[in-house]
Amino acid sequence: MVPHLITALNGPINELEQRILESMPAIERWFRLEWMEHTPPFYTSVDVRNAGFKLAPVDTNLFPGGWNNLTPEMLPLAVQAAMAAIEKICPEAKNLLLIPEKHTRNTFYLTNVQRLVQIFHQAGLNVRLGSLDDAVKEPTTIPLPDGSELTVEPLLRTRGRLGLKDFDPCTILLNNDLSAGIPRVLESLHEQYLLPPLHAGWAVRRKTHHFQAYEEVAKKFAKLLGMDPWLINPMFSQARNVSFQEGTGLEEVQSNVETLLGKIRRKYKEYGINEKPFVIVKADNGTYGMGIMTVRDAKELDEIGRRTRNKMSTAKDGQDISELIIQEGVPTYERMNDAVAEPVVYMLDRYVVGGFYRVHAERGIDENLNSPGASFVPLAFAESNQLPRAGVKPGVSAPNRFYMYGVIARLAMLAASYELESTDPDAEIYE
Amino acid sequence: MVPHLITALNGPINELEQRILESMPAIERWFRLEWMEHTPPFYTSVDVRNAGFKLAPVDTNLFPGGWNNLTPEMLPLAVQAAMAAIEKICPEAKNLLLIPEKHTRNTFYLTNVQRLVQIFHQAGLNVRLGSLDDAVKEPTTIPLPDGSELTVEPLLRTRGRLGLKDFDPCTILLNNDLSAGIPRVLESLHEQYLLPPLHAGWAVRRKTHHFQAYEEVAKKFAKLLGMDPWLINPMFSQARNVSFQEGTGLEEVQSNVETLLGKIRRKYKEYGINEKPFVIVKADNGTYGMGIMTVRDAKELDEIGRRTRNKMSTAKDGQDISELIIQEGVPTYERMNDAVAEPVVYMLDRYVVGGFYRVHAERGIDENLNSPGASFVPLAFAESNQLPRAGVKPGVSAPNRFYMYGVIARLAMLAASYELESTDPDAEIYE
Repeated sequence: MVPHLITALNGPINELEQRILESMPAIERWFRLEWMEHTPPFYTSVDVRNAGFKLAPVDTNLFPGGWNNLTPEMLPLAVQAAMAAIEKICPEAKNLLLIPEKHTRNTFYLTNVQRLVQIFHQAGLNVRLGSLDDAVKEPTTIPLPDGSELTVEPLLRTRGRLGLKDFDPCTILLNNDLSAGIPRVLESLHEQYLLPPLHAGWAVRRKTHHFQAYEEVAKKFAKLLGMDPWLINPMFSQARNVSFQEGTGLEEVQSNVETLLGKIRRKYKEYGINEKPFVIVKADNGTYGMGIMTVRDAKELDEIGRRTRNKMSTAKDGQDISELIIQEGVPTYERMNDAVAEPVVYMLDRYVVGGFYRVHAERGIDENLNSPGASFVPLAFAESNQLPRAGVKPGVSAPNRFYMYGVIARLAMLAASYELESTDPDAEIYE
Repeated sequence: MVPHLITALNGPINELEQRILESMPAIERWFRLEWMEHTPPFYTSVDVRNAGFKLAPVDTNLFPGGWNNLTPEMLPLAVQAAMAAIEKICPEAKNLLLIPEKHTRNTFYLTNVQRLVQIFHQAGLNVRLGSLDDAVKEPTTIPLPDGSELTVEPLLRTRGRLGLKDFDPCTILLNNDLSAGIPRVLESLHEQYLLPPLHAGWAVRRKTHHFQAYEEVAKKFAKLLGMDPWLINPMFSQARNVSFQEGTGLEEVQSNVETLLGKIRRKYKEYGINEKPFVIVKADNGTYGMGIMTVRDAKELDEIGRRTRNKMSTAKDGQDISELIIQEGVPTYERMNDAVAEPVVYMLDRYVVGGFYRVHAERGIDENLNSPGASFVPLAFAESNQLPRAGVKPGVSAPNRFYMYGVIARLAMLAASYELESTDPDAEIYE
């Protein structure tokens, strides 16, 4: 059940794990108090990287796909969390309208949609699928690999509400990250719950906002545990008005890369880490593992080939890239057999409901693994014997990496909550 | 994983199962709306009996033991439900004081306590055990079968609060059903959350109150589904001022047994059920399977032997029995191999978190199974492939008995909520 993993079990991460396990009641209470003040995103997945000397989130997805990669054993947890979420948002809800991505030929993605339908149906809602694709003009049946099928239907917009034919939902759940912009059909839906909100989509969202909020969260949490926030926080800077295609704005990128590499070098020296620093340059509004490059030396940016120029120019749904985040690279020392692995943690409402390892045999420890060729191995989050046990003598119970991953992922989720509050266009301003 | 069971898969129960599965969104919504008006008990276990023609709760425990009989796979669900419960009751909580039963030599019970400690520790609380036993004058370590240990400590009562040495809890959780009466040390704790409340203990609680409330709930639910409430409701009557020892009050018992048997006979005739009716006579405040007898004919009460007189005179903790509930007997047609089985469903807050089959090889289908010799087989509640699946063609997915059991158990939990509201001595009365 538990995948055979080789992890970096040396250096500060063991201290961090130990401290996190010991502080569990304090940590859980801290989260409870934070959630009294802040609303968790409806659902979230977080890519975490464990460098042995450092453990950090590197991407926080507010429209998570890949629910099909979770084990069936995790489903009851997801259903229960969905029940708790619905109860808070709209207890009188009957109907949920789920709006997926448009690419209806990707069977992996469709299986993810099927899983989401299953979760919310079992939580007690009538779930139907509405398509943002104008080509869908009538209910369309899509066969799934397991022999079952999904039906997507055209959206029906009235003045104040969005629905389907004979289907008026209380809540609309987006599983479409709005990379292509905000469709007019989703605007001004003041009578219904639209989750996540429009400004959580990549048409508005910026990774730099997120990691700024994460830095704040990491500092608070580090204070609670009495530790250096750098151990869980990836440093970053940004660059605007960049065009890899035209070759403009690259000096700023180069200089920020240089500065960030210097900062990482100093931290490595402080902790006696014998590694070569690297940074990740990626689209500030990017997703799907598109528009990402690893830079080990600022000079590399002098000699960018045509392929990299193209890769760094276009994000998902053909959007131009002109804003970048330059992020401290966190190598991952998790392995499955010989392949590099990184944990991905799934949350629904405030609850960790599962996760998996993203494994890529052809990638290095300093590269993005979210690319073709990646495979998925369920995490053992839902295995109770992986939960820390009270009253057990030290050394008897295996160190619990999974609880720690869940804590770091929830910090990133909390940061997303801060982020969405600060970028909410409808927020009331108290001065 | 799923035990090999033989069940009565004929007659109305299949219709009921079908209707419950089809109505899942309506049922879940109905529960959500009920929980907006009523507070679920903190934790609950319910004994359910499936007669094939009828499915009904026969006992609702508000201080459930036996948490150790749940599979490890169910633990994450219990932890998540506990987190949700704490968040609602007392989000700033740090410390939980758990007060178990006194019988600290029963290793089965102690393993149950250990499991409860584990659940609440993992939900993020410091958990310590306080004893109601005056003999516990200092922290006492009790070894457990798995090599670990529990420590019980003497209670420390100040004017307004209850705690332990250097331990001031926000919440006190009772796993002691107060059969022996309400200890003075638990009275007037207005500054802390005492869960379940004192009037949920058997010193105050009456089964007849519970089944009166259940009848109300069953009628509402039957109306929602358009069915006869009898299919899920065990009929009952009561008798007061009875002494089996002295032979007084037995005429009333006999006459009520006679009347109830007649009612059951008419229902059996209505549904064409070819069974011999029986009733269960038991202590109205009884528990632990003590003070229970099966009666098939009112005349049996003329010839009660000494053993039965003794059995029917004393309940748990040596309490006299003088009030009785006379309940419609629901035979159980669930079997494991050749042994008679009944499902027991566990809930924490409003969530079904697991269950098991109570199996007894030496008992009949019309007898109480909660007696020495019973064994426990985990239910497959937490198996996601046992949850009903959306979009699957009829006949492909096995009929889902477990969801139905969870619904019936939640109806009994809701009845307990009604019951506790109506018996609350501190309730405000609106006239």
